[in-house]
Amino acid sequence: MPEAVEITEGEFAGWKTWPSDKFETGSGPFYYRLDADGGVVTRFRVEPRHLNAGGAVHGGCLLTFADFSCFAIADKDIAGRGVTVNLSGDFLNAAVEGDVLEARGEVTKAGGRIIYVRGLISAGDKPILSFTSVIMRVKS
Amino acid sequence: MPEAVEITEGEFAGWKTWPSDKFETGSGPFYYRLDADGGVVTRFRVEPRHLNAGGAVHGGCLLTFADFSCFAIADKDIAGRGVTVNLSGDFLNAAVEGDVLEARGEVTKAGGRIIYVRGLISAGDKPILSFTSVIMRVKS
Amino acid sequence: MPEAVEITEGEFAGWKTWPSDKFETGSGPFYYRLDADGGVVTRFRVEPRHLNAGGAVHGGCLLTFADFSCFAIADKDIAGRGVTVNLSGDFLNAAVEGDVLEARGEVTKAGGRIIYVRGLISAGDKPILSFTSVIMRVKS
Amino acid sequence: MPEAVEITEGEFAGWKTWPSDKFETGSGPFYYRLDADGGVVTRFRVEPRHLNAGGAVHGGCLLTFADFSCFAIADKDIAGRGVTVNLSGDFLNAAVEGDVLEARGEVTKAGGRIIYVRGLISAGDKPILSFTSVIMRVKS
Repeated sequence: MPEAVEITEGEFAGWKTWPSDKFETGSGPFYYRLDADGGVVTRFRVEPRHLNAGGAVHGGCLLTFADFSCFAIADKDIAGRGVTVNLSGDFLNAAVEGDVLEARGEVTKAGGRIIYVRGLISAGDKPILSFTSVIMRVKS
Repeated sequence: MPEAVEITEGEFAGWKTWPSDKFETGSGPFYYRLDADGGVVTRFRVEPRHLNAGGAVHGGCLLTFADFSCFAIADKDIAGRGVTVNLSGDFLNAAVEGDVLEARGEVTKAGGRIIYVRGLISAGDKPILSFTSVIMRVKS
Repeated sequence: MPEAVEITEGEFAGWKTWPSDKFETGSGPFYYRLDADGGVVTRFRVEPRHLNAGGAVHGGCLLTFADFSCFAIADKDIAGRGVTVNLSGDFLNAAVEGDVLEARGEVTKAGGRIIYVRGLISAGDKPILSFTSVIMRVKS
Repeated sequence: MPEAVEITEGEFAGWKTWPSDKFETGSGPFYYRLDADGGVVTRFRVEPRHLNAGGAVHGGCLLTFADFSCFAIADKDIAGRGVTVNLSGDFLNAAVEGDVLEARGEVTKAGGRIIYVRGLISAGDKPILSFTSVIMRVKS
């Protein structure tokens, strides 16, 4: 994984991101940190540039955030470099401008070569995207 | 669907896009047109801002382009407004800066309410992403 | 949904199944019940006929059990007849003869027309299959 | 892969199957062969035991046939033993008793370790299931 940087001011002070990922930084930035229980939580706030023509957060934006979240959730298990093999998302509800989107999830299996993740993006109590991903470790 | 606009100059003159989709326009823009056989083809050229920290096109960018492509491919069948219910992608090979990414696909079923699409993004002869999507028609 | 029947003897006494589903009954039978917390749990015991040529439970058997489990988990939400639109499974570990396979899951969204489910099949502490499904309500 | 056996009589004379796979043989048997163009085609005829409570072929039966078909389609590329990592299916139309279900597909990428397949099950002109699968080669 690239080196993470901790944000020092603003709404996401104390959260981390990976600035060397240009597409994530341009789409987000997206942020992650550990919560009180040691679980990984990721977050970003929806702006007009994240919306589709219907005024909802674009599915591609949600899947980009899901992919970011999978790497944050599985960071310790990947322990190096990984690439996404499969990413699938079920779109549950629309998210809109101003929503704070948050993802949580779990590694369902960390094998020698393949790591499986599943998670959920929500906006407060509203579920937005259910996602699963298959990540393959690659030699650096 | 929002109103499409035809590009009049540059590499993608003659291609169309949906400028009112802010996330697609910011990520891409992505373009579509009909080829000589009447099939839908979509395309964009990879720039540094599309890359992840490993120097390959970000999975989220590919899935955003796939989602755009599904709506272009199914445009006639949706015949109005649609929302993505599920989008799944298998990541076949890495795409890099300068690649022209192109997607082609087909509607595998256009039901009364649900439309199914599958397709493939490629960079020349190299397959990049195999994708499937389920779209639901919604009343405008 | 077809009418469920409660088993009265043997290992699965007190559990229910849908005998009118010929493929499930022939592959399983598979069983479901509510646990103490009111959550749906499904179960069956692996026999030699469930195995593939490598001696593990066949992926198709796991997906059949997952589909059964989705309908058990979403039974109240479907509240009538439903059909599977998409079913996806990530195969985490092999299950073998004698294992008692158990699935638990949740409805991540029950919309007016579309219901989304995700769940996990496990054999004791070992995760076997992570699954998601999209179900569409149909008029009876 | 287990050793294939060629059928010598009946509707599927000239087709092959893998009898050592107990679940496939019990669910099917399912059959495969090369067509005139060298492409892999798989097939079976729907009997009452393949149906769900609604009188359509059960989704689990279709996914079992899809998994069988993926291994037939990718047989040369796997060139040994493989296990399914992910299998996803979009259910397009219902198949019924008496239908001859046929699958065709392609390997979209055969990597050093991971093989990707996509395909379509149809009943005559009617598309039934669009499927994708990720297979990992394992050392025998």
